[in-house]
Amino acid sequence: MAGRSLETASPAGARPDPFPAGHRPVPAATVPAPTSRVLHKADLHASLRDPVLDTMTFLNEVTLRYPEAISFAPGRPYDGFFDTEQIFTHLRRYLDHLVAQGATAEEIRTAMYQYGPTAGQIREIIADSLRVDEGIDVPAESIVVTVGAQEAMLLLVRALVSGPDDVLFVVSPCYVGITGAARLLDVAVTPVEEGADGFDCADLEAAILRERARGRRPRACYVVPDHSNPSGTTMDLPTRTALLDLAERHGILLVEDSPYRMVSPGRPLPTLKSLDRSRTVVHVGSFAKTVFPGARVGFAVADQQVVDETGRTGLLADELAKIKSMVTVNTSSLSQAAVAGTLLAAGGRISALNAEPARYYGDAMRTTLRGLDARLPAARREALGVRWNEPTGGFFLTVQVPFRADNAALTRSAQEFGVIWTPMNYFYPQGGGDRALRLSTSYLTTADIEEGTARLAGFVEEMSAGS
Amino acid sequence: MAGRSLETASPAGARPDPFPAGHRPVPAATVPAPTSRVLHKADLHASLRDPVLDTMTFLNEVTLRYPEAISFAPGRPYDGFFDTEQIFTHLRRYLDHLVAQGATAEEIRTAMYQYGPTAGQIREIIADSLRVDEGIDVPAESIVVTVGAQEAMLLLVRALVSGPDDVLFVVSPCYVGITGAARLLDVAVTPVEEGADGFDCADLEAAILRERARGRRPRACYVVPDHSNPSGTTMDLPTRTALLDLAERHGILLVEDSPYRMVSPGRPLPTLKSLDRSRTVVHVGSFAKTVFPGARVGFAVADQQVVDETGRTGLLADELAKIKSMVTVNTSSLSQAAVAGTLLAAGGRISALNAEPARYYGDAMRTTLRGLDARLPAARREALGVRWNEPTGGFFLTVQVPFRADNAALTRSAQEFGVIWTPMNYFYPQGGGDRALRLSTSYLTTADIEEGTARLAGFVEEMSAGS
Repeated sequence: MAGRSLETASPAGARPDPFPAGHRPVPAATVPAPTSRVLHKADLHASLRDPVLDTMTFLNEVTLRYPEAISFAPGRPYDGFFDTEQIFTHLRRYLDHLVAQGATAEEIRTAMYQYGPTAGQIREIIADSLRVDEGIDVPAESIVVTVGAQEAMLLLVRALVSGPDDVLFVVSPCYVGITGAARLLDVAVTPVEEGADGFDCADLEAAILRERARGRRPRACYVVPDHSNPSGTTMDLPTRTALLDLAERHGILLVEDSPYRMVSPGRPLPTLKSLDRSRTVVHVGSFAKTVFPGARVGFAVADQQVVDETGRTGLLADELAKIKSMVTVNTSSLSQAAVAGTLLAAGGRISALNAEPARYYGDAMRTTLRGLDARLPAARREALGVRWNEPTGGFFLTVQVPFRADNAALTRSAQEFGVIWTPMNYFYPQGGGDRALRLSTSYLTTADIEEGTARLAGFVEEMSAGS
Repeated sequence: MAGRSLETASPAGARPDPFPAGHRPVPAATVPAPTSRVLHKADLHASLRDPVLDTMTFLNEVTLRYPEAISFAPGRPYDGFFDTEQIFTHLRRYLDHLVAQGATAEEIRTAMYQYGPTAGQIREIIADSLRVDEGIDVPAESIVVTVGAQEAMLLLVRALVSGPDDVLFVVSPCYVGITGAARLLDVAVTPVEEGADGFDCADLEAAILRERARGRRPRACYVVPDHSNPSGTTMDLPTRTALLDLAERHGILLVEDSPYRMVSPGRPLPTLKSLDRSRTVVHVGSFAKTVFPGARVGFAVADQQVVDETGRTGLLADELAKIKSMVTVNTSSLSQAAVAGTLLAAGGRISALNAEPARYYGDAMRTTLRGLDARLPAARREALGVRWNEPTGGFFLTVQVPFRADNAALTRSAQEFGVIWTPMNYFYPQGGGDRALRLSTSYLTTADIEEGTARLAGFVEEMSAGS
């Protein structure tokens, strides 16, 4: 079913008078024929001409144009773990929880229907979950519930970057959500590129010193330590502690975003936030992969103290909530209830909720790697100049190819080979990654992965021959 | 129940091992004692020092500190029309609707759980509703579903204002949502003040010419034509047509926000959008007052053509959706389902859904006006220098007083007289309204309004004596 058929068509048949007595609008005066307003894109905000905001549009178009193609593009959770009726169960569980907490019927009605607290109404439940699952022990007051991790990123960029001299570093290649949010706010992020072995603290330190020497003010660095999007790399424990130390020494914050750790197999490394003893880390949370994306619930843990010129102190979370009041006012009460109800079903243990999905995604990654290896064995890929990394979890891996993996190549791949992927170039804020592609392994069935890797190998062979 | 008690406390008793096999994080290394990070507010984005973002915080503090005070502050719908169990009914109705439309179980599951279309999945239902209720006939493709009207405002300011030379006019006094969204984006709005008789097109035209003469580029004007927040004024039909004509002549867009028209008694005037034959109006919609605020669902109707440098055209709605992809990705599927389910119950007729609330709010406004008149009759208020307007609908009215109605006065009002209101000064982007207060009549019971107006009259008498 295409997107549009999920929207309703007008009900067939004659319509009764839609206006109750007294509500019929005054008829519009007869006016001349329309002369439609045309706006010029060049007059709109520059972010709308930034490739970052166009990449998703292009990917969607390709996907719609070639519906038979197998797509390794979307970083979506697998649908098979969802069950429509469970929505009612989760909502009911949260309502029952409120009753058990002693809320009256009127209070529950208000919690579900009214404007809610800007910072969210399930902060205690999230704080409990972080404590039992992640060893992150923070007061509920330091949490702001957001419309997905995306809103949290926007709030953080806005709070932390006050003008063109403030520097926000991103480990590059980098999730488009952070560069896109920055772009909307006229903030140019400063990339610190991963090497072949992943992120290196020395590169960040060099970048900090370079920006300082230019008179700029390093403020924060955005990192995805676990199974990063797009490259699939994971930061090892020594790098995590070294990064914390570096950030402390230079007085910058670390913005940690880690949506994939609980949907990955095996024992996760500790989050930066759980290692943080100096409130150096702002942790961004997402329930998109661990509960469900449609809820659009995420959060930020921002327990940093903020002191104003009168000496009055508060939390960074309070400042983020103030910004949120001018972005979305508060997060949907229904969505918060559904997420809280899901967490309550497992005593807050997202790890337990995701034990089966984590196994599934681990299998999908291994199937993909095995499929690629079967079609492009070591000797063959060495001859072609093709290689890929072997992530231990997460949704993504990266394939280096000997040809430009751009939109034209993607179109050809979809049309002639029936397989879709994401150009890695999309994830480099200042260019790069021209000869690499990202594969997402999370959304496909095993059969599609088998067939998809075969098609991809065919495409890579053909393109490599021509390169 | 205070906000916090709606959040869960940790479950009592010992906790079982929260980590399923293989999921226990590596223990954090022993690290030195914390040296907490302190941020200076002066280093954060300037919007966080703007009074606009602090006003709501102050109001909330006053409300929490004086829980016994009767509050004319919150612009909230009355709780009495809500029923918790109806949430399940509305969601079910939407699911049934999808079935009736021919969606498979898998498609419905995807619609509820997955990432959804950025521009929304209930656009057809909203388009139908606008057609039957408002005489606004636009294709669904020109609609973007947003996280409340607030997100729509942010998207519009971002799209339309590309730099410091672009001018966004606001009719002042003005809803803080638009000035706050602009502030986050480093956009300074240009106020056009209402006179004693409300908005005058000549004032906008003069402002347009003035800004042009300064070399700036007028882009759009934000207006609330019906029962505006905060002043309660309504634009008459000749002003609406004159405003459209003016906007067309000067090539600016009108951003029309009208959350109160369907919750007001009597026959509404036509929206600017229904009178628009040249795609001059971007209509911002809100379901916060007509369905429920907790859903956080609003929308923008943006059917303007946008042409890029290659001549390729699209709709302004497409550009707004691109920005939205970097703000909230998409609007909660549960919230969209609940709103759509509610609309479907009445064939899309928001007017029919709100016939009873509209009567209720009309009564509340009349009760407030009658209460004020009884305690401060014409001769008395003339002697004091007090007057108020008499809105025919909406949630708000304005009281002019002979003293500074500032935060100090508000604190005194709450503490000594047990009544809370909103300083009108909050709503003037560049100062003004120092001797006026806004009363919201929507949220209180009749008994509270009676008692509250008596308390307010006592406060006004006392303060006027001292002024």
